[in-house]
Amino acid sequence: MRIICQQLAPAVGDEVFNHAATVAAVEDAVARGADLIVLPELCTSGYVFRDRAEVEASALGIEAPVIERWRQVLQGTEAVLVAGIPLQESDGISNAAIMLDADGVLAVYRKVHLWDEERRWFREGSEPPPVVDTRQGGIAMMVCFDLEFPEMVRGVFLQGADVIAAPTNWPAVDVPAGERQHEVHDAMTSARLSRVFIACCDRGGSERGATFAGASAIIGPDGWIRAGSESPDATSVQADVDLREARDKSTGASNDVRTDRRPDVYGGNPLLP
Amino acid sequence: MRIICQQLAPAVGDEVFNHAATVAAVEDAVARGADLIVLPELCTSGYVFRDRAEVEASALGIEAPVIERWRQVLQGTEAVLVAGIPLQESDGISNAAIMLDADGVLAVYRKVHLWDEERRWFREGSEPPPVVDTRQGGIAMMVCFDLEFPEMVRGVFLQGADVIAAPTNWPAVDVPAGERQHEVHDAMTSARLSRVFIACCDRGGSERGATFAGASAIIGPDGWIRAGSESPDATSVQADVDLREARDKSTGASNDVRTDRRPDVYGGNPLLP
Repeated sequence: MRIICQQLAPAVGDEVFNHAATVAAVEDAVARGADLIVLPELCTSGYVFRDRAEVEASALGIEAPVIERWRQVLQGTEAVLVAGIPLQESDGISNAAIMLDADGVLAVYRKVHLWDEERRWFREGSEPPPVVDTRQGGIAMMVCFDLEFPEMVRGVFLQGADVIAAPTNWPAVDVPAGERQHEVHDAMTSARLSRVFIACCDRGGSERGATFAGASAIIGPDGWIRAGSESPDATSVQADVDLREARDKSTGASNDVRTDRRPDVYGGNPLLP
Repeated sequence: MRIICQQLAPAVGDEVFNHAATVAAVEDAVARGADLIVLPELCTSGYVFRDRAEVEASALGIEAPVIERWRQVLQGTEAVLVAGIPLQESDGISNAAIMLDADGVLAVYRKVHLWDEERRWFREGSEPPPVVDTRQGGIAMMVCFDLEFPEMVRGVFLQGADVIAAPTNWPAVDVPAGERQHEVHDAMTSARLSRVFIACCDRGGSERGATFAGASAIIGPDGWIRAGSESPDATSVQADVDLREARDKSTGASNDVRTDRRPDVYGGNPLLP
């Protein structure tokens, strides 16, 4: 199974450019034989909105032409695409991820944990991410900051996810010498502790003074990076993986993440979950 | 507040040597002004037992002379000591951590997640780790493999832990070039995602063909290492920290780990906790 994360550099306010870039990215990934394609968070709109009007102008319905265009590009393939979009809903706009294949939209997920100014623009999701039993395996979606809540990863692990496809927009941050972008460090741990793949598709570029990390990473269930970007440029990150690795939850000769968990003990804390 | 992890290299079967080494380590830490002293997992016994008789011979009651000796060394100080021991109980032996100060034992914790052969020797703990409101702040204990279960760290975070003192016995493992012992990597994430300090006191040396990592680390609530060992020798790891850092749970201008959690969403998964 080939995973390709298409790290784009959207330009907020320029939907024509952004939409064309996403279509070209899906075409490129299909041409390269991708089975799972991941695009960044808010890849059709950009991130650093100036005002509410700009968010509203960028919001897409689930039948938006650009989504239908992605579906058309997937035709004749078994590929699954996950992309982050601003989703127009009856009661506001969600920072959403959608999953689709050649037959249409398979699932929609609304970001539960909103970061900083996102609260000004987006409604909060109120449902955990689904794990979709696709032709490629069990695929879950999360969006960016969601990954920093261990409850989220454990939730999809318990539902049988093989891989978490995570559109992200990580701001570039300073880290100590020799360390990596902390969100990548932490996604490695999350992958390892639940023995799942995590495919983070980050964005690059800069917008209105904000610079992005461009730290896309495809991480194995052993927690190590199979392929990754360390450049804020638009680029592509690709790894060929065997999802069955994620179904082996053993961590040693007589240890297994699934059976070693002790819900009887965790439940002793009335504050969990 | 000064945290000192005394990374020892016990010799299984040689309790006289091991006990003396722990007493010397506590004396040394007190002389250096430690406020929180952490010793390794099973520091009085060593780890690679040959048979049940050896485990039984090494087991300590809570009134064991070596524990009383530690308490005496703490007299005249405000220091808190956390150490891993094989604890004799009415129904078996626990892989335990005990917390004490000059006044006596403050808390006992029995390792919940047993690794590999430990299942042959030890009874499983069935209670979550307490968070003890000590003179030094809220201190929780975990033992080694416990740290690899995010539910555990979240549990003590929710109970108000400032620092997790974790006696460990990490086996040395191969990791990709440029990466560190994965348990340390993952403890960094656990610290960061709950904004707590974690003080892992590992052991060094080797026993009966097993070699240990000697990867003791004192990690801040930002997830970065304040002081650490990368040598399997007996050594000391020391950091001066301000526990109040762990009480600030903000992760950005309008984000906070405590209030950003969404138990309403996590509870939607009937499998959690």
